[in-house]
Amino acid sequence: MELWYTEEWTDNVRFSIKTDRHLFSGKSEFQTVDVFESKEYGRFLTLDGLMMVTEKDEFIYHDMIVHVPMATNPNIKRALVIGGGDGGTVRELSRYSTIEKIDMVEIDKMVVDVSRDYIDICACKLDDSRVNLYYEDGVAFIKNSKDKSYDLIIVDSTDPVGPGEGLFSVDFYNDCYRVLSDDGILVNQNETPYFESYAREMKRANNKISSIFPITKVYQAHIPTYPSGHWLFGFASKKFDPIKDQNREAWESLNLKTKYYNSDIHVGAFMLPQYVKDMLNEDK
Amino acid sequence: MELWYTEEWTDNVRFSIKTDRHLFSGKSEFQTVDVFESKEYGRFLTLDGLMMVTEKDEFIYHDMIVHVPMATNPNIKRALVIGGGDGGTVRELSRYSTIEKIDMVEIDKMVVDVSRDYIDICACKLDDSRVNLYYEDGVAFIKNSKDKSYDLIIVDSTDPVGPGEGLFSVDFYNDCYRVLSDDGILVNQNETPYFESYAREMKRANNKISSIFPITKVYQAHIPTYPSGHWLFGFASKKFDPIKDQNREAWESLNLKTKYYNSDIHVGAFMLPQYVKDMLNEDK
Repeated sequence: MELWYTEEWTDNVRFSIKTDRHLFSGKSEFQTVDVFESKEYGRFLTLDGLMMVTEKDEFIYHDMIVHVPMATNPNIKRALVIGGGDGGTVRELSRYSTIEKIDMVEIDKMVVDVSRDYIDICACKLDDSRVNLYYEDGVAFIKNSKDKSYDLIIVDSTDPVGPGEGLFSVDFYNDCYRVLSDDGILVNQNETPYFESYAREMKRANNKISSIFPITKVYQAHIPTYPSGHWLFGFASKKFDPIKDQNREAWESLNLKTKYYNSDIHVGAFMLPQYVKDMLNEDK
Repeated sequence: MELWYTEEWTDNVRFSIKTDRHLFSGKSEFQTVDVFESKEYGRFLTLDGLMMVTEKDEFIYHDMIVHVPMATNPNIKRALVIGGGDGGTVRELSRYSTIEKIDMVEIDKMVVDVSRDYIDICACKLDDSRVNLYYEDGVAFIKNSKDKSYDLIIVDSTDPVGPGEGLFSVDFYNDCYRVLSDDGILVNQNETPYFESYAREMKRANNKISSIFPITKVYQAHIPTYPSGHWLFGFASKKFDPIKDQNREAWESLNLKTKYYNSDIHVGAFMLPQYVKDMLNEDK
């Protein structure tokens, strides 16, 4: 017998992983949560049949969503993570001793519980004393947050359907702007440019963010377990440019060992293929 | 009825494309050749069940294998393409009016014939007056070539099993060095670092090339239809460094319209993830 996990990247494209065991399957108020064990990727977590993290390559996503803003402004002290229930983003943030507070707002407690039980590689720092977990809707949480409460907001969300939908709205981005300090940086996962339906959401999110923040850039990473493997992140800020203001020395002096991020790829990640640049410019 | 093309990226990972029609299937002396029609990727060509080119994204591979060396040394006049039977590499080379001669050595005439019949987007410049087609073994061809006959060699090969195997040997790379001019550049497709079996071949090829050429670098592109979508190229030369010697002005003055390559990604492509850098250094 063979057991294959198959994900529909589009109606016409599928990605399949041979699995050894289906370790967990549950239905929360918000979505279905599954964990599988596999030879190629180790354990992996899916939500509504979409890949969230694998033990093999979660480091790529988490490196790029955390170290790019941290190496741009090493003085970030108060961080807010929206989503990110697996804990990988918090784990990377917790490596910075200069960070004083990490608030994580995950709507679905089951994702956190399951990650603690099965994906310890990601969830291992959720009990750090600086971490505060809120099982709430990120949109409501940020609406109720005080002005300038955070130096960094990371939107570590699912796609803009289901529970993640509100995290792609203008109101939400406006609130992000309001609760960020004058030094503030917003980073969000931003889909793939390669498949049309994802690219449409990517452009929409970007247009909204660009209308609010003075500095907005898009960067990319090779994440082979996400559709197409070509994944984008949005970087928005009130003051810092991720290239001009990259603080190589400060970041390198921390001696953090990373498997994907380094000071060169920090720059290279912002150098986008022409078709992606054209996409980002076409609606402007 | 549904017809799916499925490729085994590893024993444990599969990538599948919904196809409308199986347009061609043939068995040459060297391999099986197939062409499919699909909604997501247009037509695509496979050899021994491995993806070679799709109409949707062939531009990524061909942009990156051609424009990186051409923007490093705009004085390239004599080019040799080993493999590349679909014609896409020749097509991109033919856009440079400064190139005087393009020799293409493809062992399998069926690949060229089928590409002419079905993948015209790639094969459309094979009749350019500067192009000479040789249906021969690339290893033997280069062994019999005179010293310093070419300014550029592009190894546009299949993986190092089957007909492509000799194109990953020390003897072959030594001959490449010998037949290149003092300005000469060698570019080769160099597998993915993400899956172990491919990464092993990538490292082996790199070690061999590094032992022969004074300047060797590795660069990457997002090619979603190749295993993992994270694909590498090797750049080796006798004199030119692809970053220090990049001739932005010369390349941009040509006003070539490209969908993936641009002067920024020329640089960014050489900025590799830490785990890839570590891999490349570990055997040195």
